[in-house]
Amino acid sequence: MQERRCVLAFLGGTGPEGRGLALRMALAGEQAVIGSRDATRASSAAEELLQVASGKNIQGAENSEAAASCQVAFLTFPYEGQRSTLEALGGALDGKIVVDVIAPMVFQRGRGASALEVTAGSAAEEAQEILPNSQVVAAFQNVSAEELQQPGTVMDGDVVVCSDHAEAKVLVMDLVRKIPDLRPVDGGALANAKYVEQITPLLVNINRIHKIHAGIRIVGL
Amino acid sequence: MQERRCVLAFLGGTGPEGRGLALRMALAGEQAVIGSRDATRASSAAEELLQVASGKNIQGAENSEAAASCQVAFLTFPYEGQRSTLEALGGALDGKIVVDVIAPMVFQRGRGASALEVTAGSAAEEAQEILPNSQVVAAFQNVSAEELQQPGTVMDGDVVVCSDHAEAKVLVMDLVRKIPDLRPVDGGALANAKYVEQITPLLVNINRIHKIHAGIRIVGL
Repeated sequence: MQERRCVLAFLGGTGPEGRGLALRMALAGEQAVIGSRDATRASSAAEELLQVASGKNIQGAENSEAAASCQVAFLTFPYEGQRSTLEALGGALDGKIVVDVIAPMVFQRGRGASALEVTAGSAAEEAQEILPNSQVVAAFQNVSAEELQQPGTVMDGDVVVCSDHAEAKVLVMDLVRKIPDLRPVDGGALANAKYVEQITPLLVNINRIHKIHAGIRIVGL
Repeated sequence: MQERRCVLAFLGGTGPEGRGLALRMALAGEQAVIGSRDATRASSAAEELLQVASGKNIQGAENSEAAASCQVAFLTFPYEGQRSTLEALGGALDGKIVVDVIAPMVFQRGRGASALEVTAGSAAEEAQEILPNSQVVAAFQNVSAEELQQPGTVMDGDVVVCSDHAEAKVLVMDLVRKIPDLRPVDGGALANAKYVEQITPLLVNINRIHKIHAGIRIVGL
């Protein structure tokens, strides 16, 4: 932890976002554990990533094992699974940093992506409510999972990082800098995660119009 | 209208957003009318702007007169006034393009800016409901009013433009290009205005942290 080198778990990490972030973090020298409800699927995903990142440290494990072994857990599953997944983990994430990557969205034919309403305000605030003993940080919601999975692609954009825990926020901002050329932007309190999460359906809809993988940059900094 | 040269009204335009947009449009050669509930205040604002943009075409008028005389009306008052102002205008905006610049927000001590919930989804969708015979376009919500008012400042960022009216959207995207170096980005349907409006409180809070006038840019285009 002194050198900011730690075990990073990607819970529900067999999807594009989890694979992409695990790959980039492993390529930067971090120890990545792909978590899944199914340990076999997790191991398969880890093996596939190792073909792109040979010699790097990527393993697969059942979600609860990944959570228990890590210092930082990334939530990289769809919003629908957040409450049940976190509640099932019991106290495994107590005292740990939890990076909520989730942007609650629904897709409708003809309408595209829409933000799902979340009673807590945002997925990240809901995660903090479910995990009062963890330090929840919202980040990476607007980053293209497709581009993360292409290690040759230089990421162009900003990651707005929101949290009510200052030290955890600094650590996650340092993790953002490990992915070339992403830039972390201090986005203030966790209450601001709502606005960052809702940028994702906008980007998804812009992607459909322009046939791109859009990201955002905060200008004026 | 053929040459995209038209009378632009800035309703409730004596505030920073209205002044800034009117100034920039007048500097680009457009005819700007500052509207206000109070014709005297509107004329004062127009005279002040003419000191920065001498020889340009800026006038002041009571809101209803400004609405009646224009081809394109910008809504540049706080959200709280939207319904009453638009309803009071009756049919003056029928058949016209209405650019909703409003980002519904509230400021709370210690918490900063928060998005106000709007039943229609967004201020822009609400305006379209109130004005079924107008072509509502959502734009400019994320642009710094302070920087708009400094004609020497090159604007750095994107204006995401959302509308259900394709031709109106194209015209407003052309108006965006008149402000150096703003870039219009087609943001799809008016339903996406919700996400764009909610970027504004995020930017306001980022401004407070970083002591800047932040804007956004869509990367990957």
